[in-house]
Amino acid sequence: MAKRLFGGIEGGGTKFICAVGADARHILAETRIETTSPAETLRRATAFFKEQEERFGKLSAIGFACFGPLDPNPASSTYGYVLPTPKPGWSNVNVVGMLRESFDVPIAFDTDVNGAALGEQRWGAAQGLDTFIYLTIGTGVGGGAFVEGSLLHGLLHPEMGHIPLKHDIQKDPFEGACPFHGDCFEGLASGVALEKRWGRRAETLEARHPAWELEAEYIAQALASYAMTLSPQRIILGGGVGSLPHLLPLIRQKTRERINGYIQSALVTERIESYIVHPGLGNRAGMLGAIALAEGAA
Amino acid sequence: MAKRLFGGIEGGGTKFICAVGADARHILAETRIETTSPAETLRRATAFFKEQEERFGKLSAIGFACFGPLDPNPASSTYGYVLPTPKPGWSNVNVVGMLRESFDVPIAFDTDVNGAALGEQRWGAAQGLDTFIYLTIGTGVGGGAFVEGSLLHGLLHPEMGHIPLKHDIQKDPFEGACPFHGDCFEGLASGVALEKRWGRRAETLEARHPAWELEAEYIAQALASYAMTLSPQRIILGGGVGSLPHLLPLIRQKTRERINGYIQSALVTERIESYIVHPGLGNRAGMLGAIALAEGAA
Repeated sequence: MAKRLFGGIEGGGTKFICAVGADARHILAETRIETTSPAETLRRATAFFKEQEERFGKLSAIGFACFGPLDPNPASSTYGYVLPTPKPGWSNVNVVGMLRESFDVPIAFDTDVNGAALGEQRWGAAQGLDTFIYLTIGTGVGGGAFVEGSLLHGLLHPEMGHIPLKHDIQKDPFEGACPFHGDCFEGLASGVALEKRWGRRAETLEARHPAWELEAEYIAQALASYAMTLSPQRIILGGGVGSLPHLLPLIRQKTRERINGYIQSALVTERIESYIVHPGLGNRAGMLGAIALAEGAA
Repeated sequence: MAKRLFGGIEGGGTKFICAVGADARHILAETRIETTSPAETLRRATAFFKEQEERFGKLSAIGFACFGPLDPNPASSTYGYVLPTPKPGWSNVNVVGMLRESFDVPIAFDTDVNGAALGEQRWGAAQGLDTFIYLTIGTGVGGGAFVEGSLLHGLLHPEMGHIPLKHDIQKDPFEGACPFHGDCFEGLASGVALEKRWGRRAETLEARHPAWELEAEYIAQALASYAMTLSPQRIILGGGVGSLPHLLPLIRQKTRERINGYIQSALVTERIESYIVHPGLGNRAGMLGAIALAEGAA
């Protein structure tokens, strides 16, 4: 029997990655589309999938892991919509409906970070786990979670970037960059916050710059908070800032210090290098996660 | 067919509540046992259940919702144990094993707060929900959660009382009462913290005392943090401090202000009085939760 083929869309604020494949090891085609208007962007994604169907045969399902906020609840009247967002033109747009006009197959729809979490669970650093977090720290901060064997949605979906953290304004007078919460986690530690605080783009800050000690401190606070609240078996840390190799040892050390033995698991107290890790799929977690979403919907 | 009978134990640091019944509306017997040594306390609990079995017939299962930290993972070698705890005599004690010596029925074992969460899901303020939090604020602070239809365990179990919060030491110079984390949520907002900060027991602080404005601020920060991380459909707030009627409206208002529209659900933006509620089962949530745990194990 021929392998089933899936379509995956990792829909980000600046680019859409679309791929067709059977699984992580069999990706047959992949493309990158600039994120413009919803109609234009989804038209180009649709054209890509149609072209691949000509070459490889019909898709069995499509997975769409999209930037949020969005409505992932199939029972809701706004299921498949991007919710009000600062991104011009994308508020209250039925992006799943746009795909349905062209594809009569199951379409799975979830946040980009839940998609990446599922990809890591299926083929990456979370294989065999039933409760873990996928956190991305880049321009913004977002988190997805797989909890007791299911992707976490709850009320809508998590907004993990926006938790309050301790902020010592003597040590760090920067007031925070979040338009909604000022000095929440994202407001203190996103790529945007780094650039505003230090007056240089994050990627130009050398590894020994004091920015990173402070950055690791905020990230460690956030990871300790998630560990206490959600009890993950692992935390996967990705994104442009989150993936920086020199940052990881500092984050691990400071997170363990923050938890201070209170979570009585050797994974935290002795093997924190297995507890806080980078994505097993690297920067392909989101795209492969979209394929995994499709697989689950087929 | 006769109704099945369940035994429930709400095991707390100062008292064990034991009950026998078929469900929340059919509790046939209930007793309160002072928490002394594990052997003595469980001997008295066992004697109570044996006595009820003489009167009403054999129990089908027992649910044990216990103070933590504990090991609730049936696949672990220390399943059924209380883990190292400051409480004298209870560290590394196989409390489920002690019950098994006398009862040859399924025994469910979970945290007191997960028990209460399950009780609320079955018969209280969380009926029909698949993702919510049960938080108790009393002498200490603890949280349980039901997530996507399952009680949350993850790595071990949540320790929701110990998340970091913003702490303005100009406004509140109290350094925090947590031996592990100083000014974490529990360190700032538990009954113990209230007493240490104000020099009076929490129950003697009148409703207009400035203590409550500050208390509501810390609780609101914590609820906003949980809402962002775990995306609950409801937050149930119990415990001696958490249940104070004059505190609830302040907590609701401040939590909504903290979230500041970022969670795009009318439940948060318009109907916060349905989002943050007191337990439907009042102070019986824990005991009835233990019965619900038993029901699930039978």
